[in-house]
Amino acid sequence: MPTYKAPLEDIDFVLNDLLQADNLTKLPGFEDATRDLVSSILEEAAKLCENELQPLNRPGHEEGCHYENGVVRTPKGFKEAYQAYVDGGWQGLSMDPKYGGQGLPHAITFVLEELLISANMAFAMYPGLTQGAWNAIHTHANDQLKDTYLPKMTTGEWSGTMCLTEPHCGTDLGLIKTKAVPNDDGSYSITGTKIFISAGEHDLTSNIIHLVLAKLPDAPSGVKGISLFLVPKFLPTEDNQPGQRNGVMCGSIEHKMGIMANATCVMNFDDAKGWLVGEPHKGMRAMFTMMNAARLGVGMQGLGIATVAYQNALTYTKERLQGRSLTGAKEPEKAADPLIVHPDVRKNLMTIKAFTEGARALGYWVGIQLDQADHNPDLKARAEADEFVALLTPVVKAYFTDMGYECATMAQQMYGGHGYIREWGMEQFVRDARIAMIYEGANGIQALDLVGRKLGQDMGRLLRRFFHPLAGELESAMEDTDLLEFAGPLAKAFGKLQQATAIVAQRGMKNPDEAGAASTDYLRIFGLVALGWMWLRMVKVANAKLAEGGNGKSGFYEAKIKTARFFVQRLLPEVDFRFKALMSGAKTVMDLEADLF
Amino acid sequence: MPTYKAPLEDIDFVLNDLLQADNLTKLPGFEDATRDLVSSILEEAAKLCENELQPLNRPGHEEGCHYENGVVRTPKGFKEAYQAYVDGGWQGLSMDPKYGGQGLPHAITFVLEELLISANMAFAMYPGLTQGAWNAIHTHANDQLKDTYLPKMTTGEWSGTMCLTEPHCGTDLGLIKTKAVPNDDGSYSITGTKIFISAGEHDLTSNIIHLVLAKLPDAPSGVKGISLFLVPKFLPTEDNQPGQRNGVMCGSIEHKMGIMANATCVMNFDDAKGWLVGEPHKGMRAMFTMMNAARLGVGMQGLGIATVAYQNALTYTKERLQGRSLTGAKEPEKAADPLIVHPDVRKNLMTIKAFTEGARALGYWVGIQLDQADHNPDLKARAEADEFVALLTPVVKAYFTDMGYECATMAQQMYGGHGYIREWGMEQFVRDARIAMIYEGANGIQALDLVGRKLGQDMGRLLRRFFHPLAGELESAMEDTDLLEFAGPLAKAFGKLQQATAIVAQRGMKNPDEAGAASTDYLRIFGLVALGWMWLRMVKVANAKLAEGGNGKSGFYEAKIKTARFFVQRLLPEVDFRFKALMSGAKTVMDLEADLF
Repeated sequence: MPTYKAPLEDIDFVLNDLLQADNLTKLPGFEDATRDLVSSILEEAAKLCENELQPLNRPGHEEGCHYENGVVRTPKGFKEAYQAYVDGGWQGLSMDPKYGGQGLPHAITFVLEELLISANMAFAMYPGLTQGAWNAIHTHANDQLKDTYLPKMTTGEWSGTMCLTEPHCGTDLGLIKTKAVPNDDGSYSITGTKIFISAGEHDLTSNIIHLVLAKLPDAPSGVKGISLFLVPKFLPTEDNQPGQRNGVMCGSIEHKMGIMANATCVMNFDDAKGWLVGEPHKGMRAMFTMMNAARLGVGMQGLGIATVAYQNALTYTKERLQGRSLTGAKEPEKAADPLIVHPDVRKNLMTIKAFTEGARALGYWVGIQLDQADHNPDLKARAEADEFVALLTPVVKAYFTDMGYECATMAQQMYGGHGYIREWGMEQFVRDARIAMIYEGANGIQALDLVGRKLGQDMGRLLRRFFHPLAGELESAMEDTDLLEFAGPLAKAFGKLQQATAIVAQRGMKNPDEAGAASTDYLRIFGLVALGWMWLRMVKVANAKLAEGGNGKSGFYEAKIKTARFFVQRLLPEVDFRFKALMSGAKTVMDLEADLF
Repeated sequence: MPTYKAPLEDIDFVLNDLLQADNLTKLPGFEDATRDLVSSILEEAAKLCENELQPLNRPGHEEGCHYENGVVRTPKGFKEAYQAYVDGGWQGLSMDPKYGGQGLPHAITFVLEELLISANMAFAMYPGLTQGAWNAIHTHANDQLKDTYLPKMTTGEWSGTMCLTEPHCGTDLGLIKTKAVPNDDGSYSITGTKIFISAGEHDLTSNIIHLVLAKLPDAPSGVKGISLFLVPKFLPTEDNQPGQRNGVMCGSIEHKMGIMANATCVMNFDDAKGWLVGEPHKGMRAMFTMMNAARLGVGMQGLGIATVAYQNALTYTKERLQGRSLTGAKEPEKAADPLIVHPDVRKNLMTIKAFTEGARALGYWVGIQLDQADHNPDLKARAEADEFVALLTPVVKAYFTDMGYECATMAQQMYGGHGYIREWGMEQFVRDARIAMIYEGANGIQALDLVGRKLGQDMGRLLRRFFHPLAGELESAMEDTDLLEFAGPLAKAFGKLQQATAIVAQRGMKNPDEAGAASTDYLRIFGLVALGWMWLRMVKVANAKLAEGGNGKSGFYEAKIKTARFFVQRLLPEVDFRFKALMSGAKTVMDLEADLF
């Protein structure tokens, strides 16, 4: 059975040594979010994840969810674990105190999400969806809806969903058929079928609040005619208890490759009563509020799964005796050496380590910028942070989840045949990780979002939020002999990213297919450069710490430097490949006629 | 539900236009293997695979195998399908006529294997294992054993297994504990436990012939003390019927990630009666006879799964309407354009197409060389072919299966959310493909075999079987203006492969960890260059055919040229990345102390 230990030491390093998360206390509302408080919160979160949620992960995978006549039962133990989650006040961690939340920084929720996912991804999705729905209601709904629904969602007593996809359309939401007809009382009657609704029905909460995309009778066609509606499973009574059952039913649950303990539902809306969230026909905007947060959360799934898969592979490769080191027996008194003596095994471990630690740094940084975007009193700083987050969102979503799957596969590989056996738990990580590349906008869509929307936005202003500070940091690093070995390769990779950006913009203007054909390679380059940047910054911090004597953690800081070296020498060169592929243009991709495939 | 259509047109192109498989008829024993005969055999094989085996693939995945008290039941329909396989005489296709086989070239069996795997990989493993066991008996056993067992295995009436792995060792077989004690009658009593035994127990055949690695009482320690034994489930009676039950029982079957319809068994040998195959303590040699054939067969699994996954993704992307082409609506009369108009979707399709068609060419070529190695009357030609096969075996095994998994994942991705749902069948391809990277020597072991054993063997003689003809072909292609665009990038990639070879050899002499740290990147470069070579050759053939007017298949030949262009421009550049990573040496990989991971 796999195990999990929250990587609190590395989290502390990233939050405090690298990102100075303490600075958030200077923002209004975050005064209490001191290093000490955050650290004790995370220690508690670690206990919940390690002791309550992780032990349910494999049993949940084996048992799955149960469906009968519209009722969904989660696997054994999930109800109790969810109650512990609610009782601990975890759902409201970074939610608005006005509705009962603790108002802590989003950055802390990012960390919490990583821990929950590592421990039990299928479980983590339930509160994750509530968070997304909460955000949309909080930002776009009127006060009456907010007052009714947010308090119960803040505690986690009620949960939330996002109902977007229909059988004939997922990516292309302009095609949806679900209808909303106005009632006399200001509510709407919603009718239609939604599929792939995670947590659409379950037994964890007393009510489920669906956010549903639908079309009003007078809706313009396409995405400009979509509105967002709040549809509760039970209509709230006057004292805000779950009252009359609404016309929404779960028709079935899907049999999936993974995340077996999370119910993926077909939801039938049959004259269900709902209320408009935001303005008519402006549903896509409201949806993107949910979606952007959700995309970052999904990115963290890549990190979370890679982390737990790494931990288990590390244990296994240290314990499993098999073969001898190529350079002579390392443990001659034993029948064989442990797997970790083998260079190829070590290369795999180093790859996952370099990814996860780099991704943690980047992911939390985006989390902090999200707080800046929401709380900084300086409007310019706020806008800049918002732009940074918007730019990085598709990168975090797609690059992290592609790598999460690659890393889980790599960790599974280290187990040999045992990795393929369910009992050992490694195959679950691969199967769970797989969905993150698909949902909340498949990774190809993320790449299109990056090149098609984010690059060109406001004449490249978003891009400057990333390019300018990186250029500045590289300039000084190139003059520091301790940093040159890291800054040099990164500068070259960054040069290729800039060149690719110019080419994509230029060619894409003439022929949009050029941007499309370049998109996934471009996003990958972006992700590699972003992680390279994080590694440069981590080396700077580690050097400084070591210069101060290392504070008893010299090994930890030296590991950072060696892992950074591995990253720039072994992983960053992928930029060369992707750059060359991208530069070859759209012709190689589009030239073959569809009927000759 | 997925569908499958055997790619007979491409197979014909590869076998006949590219590889002139007809030449095999010049070898003694293969006189009858004419193009016409082969083509009609393959048409029959296609029918079996498309109509009988493929429809059982998804049901078999869902139902899995059943275990009760030592008895294993395969999923519904497997028994009947296996009987059809036996009745069709498919098992003996390339087996020795002396034992009832049809004595056709191995190359034809390679094609048959590809078709079987595409249709139903879990099913294909049953006859595949019989083939491997048959090879080992045929090459190493005495006449009495051969006469007793081979005829029934040739018909498929009896099946075979390979019993190698034990709970504490898989890769490192020197550690095995299974014992063989000589009996007075020349037989041996075998006692021990073997795990991960594919097809170890099932209901398809009336007897199962286990080939078991075990140690004699006087065995030297390590791999030099391993012997191979034949242990039948039922001891044959005098008239060669399954008689008394032998002391071998299936203790349980594994719950796995995939290949659900193939029973993976724990086999308990308890004073089971067995006979020595080959010489005492020389079991590893006999085992490698099985293993090498099995490795090539596993390589074909990568190709087979990628092919069927591609076919289904192609259908889906042509039918599913979602979004509009970036360059304006392509089917304005419909609600949306089909997915295939999108450059990124097309890039994924082209990637799989370029891999599968290149791999088919390389795989079948190796199959033909295997026939040359076995049948060519010229001993020098025979040895050269054997060396070529030995060199390419780890490349085919590891590169094909890594790519098979990547391609299956890519094909699944094109389905969006539906790809994650079991009903659509794409997740099965990913799960089935996954095992091929692990069994018959995990891919890391293949890479070590390539750099540690094959590169240096006989002063690089094996390598010259590949390098010399490629160098020759490139030299002339570089002077052909029609070929330059393909030969140029390939020559550069080949240059890097040669440079990497020299570096690995040089550095590896001083420090074997250098070879280990380079191995997987080196193998990947080798695979890419090998496929690049195939594409160059296919372009030459396509050009020639088009110059002759295309014979009504101009589109097919033009597609070859465009796919080759995609390969050299979009996929071959991965060589740059792998080369750079490899060149960084072992230090980045080995530098971090194990306790700092």
